[in-house]
Formats: sequence, C-alpha cells, structure tokens
Amino acid sequence: MSRGNGHAPGLRILGVDPGLQVTGYAVLEVRPQRPFVCEAGVIRTTDERRTTNLAPRLLSLYDSLVEVIEQLKPQVAAVEQLYAHYNHPRTAILMAHARGVIFLAAAKHGLPVVSYAATRIKKTITGHGRATKEQMQRAITTELGLPKLPEPHDVADALAAALCHYYCQKATA
Amino acid sequence: MSRGNGHAPGLRILGVDPGLQVTGYAVLEVRPQRPFVCEAGVIRTTDERRTTNLAPRLLSLYDSLVEVIEQLKPQVAAVEQLYAHYNHPRTAILMAHARGVIFLAAAKHGLPVVSYAATRIKKTITGHGRATKEQMQRAITTELGLPKLPEPHDVADALAAALCHYYCQKATA
Repeated sequence: MSRGNGHAPGLRILGVDPGLQVTGYAVLEVRPQRPFVCEAGVIRTTDERRTTNLAPRLLSLYDSLVEVIEQLKPQVAAVEQLYAHYNHPRTAILMAHARGVIFLAAAKHGLPVVSYAATRIKKTITGHGRATKEQMQRAITTELGLPKLPEPHDVADALAAALCHYYCQKATA
Repeated sequence: MSRGNGHAPGLRILGVDPGLQVTGYAVLEVRPQRPFVCEAGVIRTTDERRTTNLAPRLLSLYDSLVEVIEQLKPQVAAVEQLYAHYNHPRTAILMAHARGVIFLAAAKHGLPVVSYAATRIKKTITGHGRATKEQMQRAITTELGLPKLPEPHDVADALAAALCHYYCQKATA
C-alpha cells in the first residue's frame, strides 16, 4: 500500500456512497501523519407521499450534498464505480440516478470526480479485493484512528472511497 | 385513444428522451384543436477531453435543460421509464445518470415528473405497444400536424413522451 504523499496538506477529499434512500458521505483532510475525518455521515431522503417518485428524493439528495460541499469545501470527490452491480440491474439503475445528481453537485462546484472499482477500493484499504464489510470497517478504523467502527455501512463505504483516493492519488476518473 | 381534454389550455408539457451524449427534448402546449410544438430539439454533450468523465457531461446536460425549462416554462415533465433496457445494463446505467439530472432539473423548477413505460407510449400513440420507430414517427407527424417526420429519433422520442402525457392526463408517476 503506497501512502498518499502526493497530496497537498490540507486537501479535502469527499467520499460518497450513492443510494436513493441513504447516501453515505465523508470528508477527509490530508494531514502529515494520517488523514483526518472532518465529517462523515448519511443523507437520508424521505418521500413523504410514500410513492416511487424519484424527483423529490433526488432534489433532497442534491441539496443536502451541496450543503456538505459548501460547508466543508472538499476539492475532489471519490465515488465507487457501479459495474459491480450488474447482477441487480434495477438497484444499479436506481443508484445511477442518485449517482448522476452526486456527479452534478460535484461538477457544479468545480470538483473533479474520480470513480474507483469496488475491488480496487477493497484491495487498496485491506490488501484484498474481496474483503468483507467487517474487514473493511476494521481497516478503516485503524487507518483513520477512529474511536469506533464506522456505522452504518454507507458511512464506512464513503470513508473507504475517500481513503482509496487518498492512497491512489494518481488514479484517473 | 382518449383525447387529453383534462388539460388546461396553455399547459406546457416537457417531453425528454434521456441520453448521455444526446438528449431529445420537446415542449408541447395544450391548445383547443391539437397540441402545439413550442420547441423540439436535442441537447448534445461533448467531452472535449475525450475521456469517459461523466461529471462534465452531466453538468452540460443539466445546464442546457434548465435553459429550456426557464425559457419555455413547461409545467410538467414526461420521461420514458428505463425498465425496457435491462438487457443492456451498461447503457441503462449510463442513461440513468442522465435521467437523474433531468429529474433534478425538473424538481428544481417545481415540475412534477411522470414516467411512462415505452410500450405504453407506443400503444398510446400508435395503438400498438410494439410499434416501430417509423410507425411512431409517422403517427407523431400526423397527430401534431408537423410538416415533416421528426428527426433525429431522440426528438421523436421526446415528442412521443410529451404526447403520451397529453393523452394520459390521469397517469401517475
């Protein structure tokens, strides 16, 4: 695992785990010793009318993510690639709608977006492309010096995407 | 085929055919005799760096569609459902990114978004759920009294979505 020493200190990396109901996000700041978690959490979109109406959910997700970007001012966004989800096309398609507005929120604020394959994120963080969720959570906790395991898994996945970008600074979108 | 007599005269319907490279759009206005085409065209997103970078394309699509909405002021948007494309998951996933920002542009401007299955659009316009592209183009030309067949097919598909909404005024998203 190569350390992300190519980053300028103070650089902030936004990691996002896209979802239509729950989107995980995390902002890491590059520091000399190890990356610092500025904030990590979830954006939940509720549909009060309990319909399958996508548009209000996407608007709520977009507005919340813009708030995170404007408050924490990350300079780059890292998101997991979707190709691992081909065996669940309906989920992948719904997730891609969310991903579209996440990419848009980043682009609107001048953030380049870098996509990483799920296996690459796992391999970068644990050394194994097929690491379990628990192995990932433990590795993230250690690498970031967190007081406890990151939960829910959406937050862990967002931290993982940001941490992967931290280590793979030469990766391309 | 039931006529869309439930619409208020002057109501403007935005039809969109989502695509990452080419998105068709059409704005129909409800008039006493038959719907009037205010504008129909395509939004092309070019990626100058010739990469697979989605974010700049999505931003360009979003900004162009917002321009259409702000200039022509439609009050509702009609978009084709994506489920017909499950046999091409990669295309469907890319298209869903575009669809996400289209839904967002509509929601940001207070437009409800109504999705129609491709077969429903075809059936509503031609009477056959499996109509060919040519049959659709001819039916749209006749129904809207156009001087020639709408082209490219992205424009025809956008007109078809708007026209379907015109006929199915009680359909829900």
